[in-house]
Amino acid sequence: MNVFYTESDHGIQQQFYLEGQEARHAAKALRLREGDEVYATDGKGRRLKGTVTAISKQRVVASTTEIEEIPRPSPGITLAMGIIKKRDRLEFAVEKAVELGVSEIALFVSDHTIKTNVREDRLHNIVLSAVKQSLRVWLPQVNIYDALDNVLAEYNQHHKLMAHEKTTQSFQNKMRTEDELLLMVGPEGGFSDREVQLAGEAGSELVSLGKYRLRAETAAVTFLARILS
Amino acid sequence: MNVFYTESDHGIQQQFYLEGQEARHAAKALRLREGDEVYATDGKGRRLKGTVTAISKQRVVASTTEIEEIPRPSPGITLAMGIIKKRDRLEFAVEKAVELGVSEIALFVSDHTIKTNVREDRLHNIVLSAVKQSLRVWLPQVNIYDALDNVLAEYNQHHKLMAHEKTTQSFQNKMRTEDELLLMVGPEGGFSDREVQLAGEAGSELVSLGKYRLRAETAAVTFLARILS
Repeated sequence: MNVFYTESDHGIQQQFYLEGQEARHAAKALRLREGDEVYATDGKGRRLKGTVTAISKQRVVASTTEIEEIPRPSPGITLAMGIIKKRDRLEFAVEKAVELGVSEIALFVSDHTIKTNVREDRLHNIVLSAVKQSLRVWLPQVNIYDALDNVLAEYNQHHKLMAHEKTTQSFQNKMRTEDELLLMVGPEGGFSDREVQLAGEAGSELVSLGKYRLRAETAAVTFLARILS
Repeated sequence: MNVFYTESDHGIQQQFYLEGQEARHAAKALRLREGDEVYATDGKGRRLKGTVTAISKQRVVASTTEIEEIPRPSPGITLAMGIIKKRDRLEFAVEKAVELGVSEIALFVSDHTIKTNVREDRLHNIVLSAVKQSLRVWLPQVNIYDALDNVLAEYNQHHKLMAHEKTTQSFQNKMRTEDELLLMVGPEGGFSDREVQLAGEAGSELVSLGKYRLRAETAAVTFLARILS
């Protein structure tokens, strides 16, 4: 099933539009025609079914036949990840995080971050593709922060967990509460002592992700996989 | 810390050798010299420390100063994964599986497998790199099978779990036993009904990996991340 992304908002109960690469894909790759069924999400909780009423490479118009509103997953989970050097690994982590149901992603320049080569446009496409492929209806935001300090300030009300090798605190003890969760993963080289202390002062707890040393993107995916049971 | 892989076996308590790309990396990239300390694993449970006594691009000889024998993780976990079309995603799953501590990897031609473009040489290098990077001392084998039938025959004594979307059986109920585990993940398109039935007849249980549809490589990593708590 092909699910498209629509930026339509007003009047979505009557009709919705596909534009840009969504329209191009619908028209050229899938060769949708007037009268065909089309599925879409608006990334804000709505699952839409419609009938194509007009189609071009720039724009597809569909008359809404079904609309389902799915509440935002609660409590939500934000993955905060120190920016790592290898862009493809970072993108992989972002893609997996979306598949696993993350609500928001906060990428930050960690004390040990070597290069900050984040391509936000690529990340947006990756997130969008993952949302569509996973049949999700909520589009996670990806935000970039200059330091962990800023992430902690932004998510100061969240229940905070920081992945760290040096703790023996098992993950099992950190059962999910009803609060919004912030999961923090460091870059290559891990978190600095400063960051660990800062997070601790903000009420963060340390958790171990197991006995093996994990790459940053593996730690991110592992963290989420365990939380989102 | 750079950890090398040695194929040395006999006499390893006295000395060990690095050859091929290991030697090349030691000699050229890291510029190891006589008298330098060098760390290695033999992939069979041994962690070695040695002093370089001779070095060339083809061969490094080290006199063993410390040797630690680590027992094989028990019970072991085998990841059985249906071969997926995109080779980079397959390789990623293999790399993550090794990082997460898998004992063996069984790649098989699933009923829904589209292409079988497995590069065993690349996989061997990926596994080796992941072992070294994760500071593991046991080198997981990667074997290729023609069908799930063969995997089930090979691992017939294992406690078997099959990831499947259609079950609501939560993962939490499937606590680890003392037996060797076989975790099965299907390719794109999932397992065929035939495969599900076959696995069931072999005593396999179905488990859900959560409510979102996961890509094959994400399912593999998620499965392992949850088991290896």
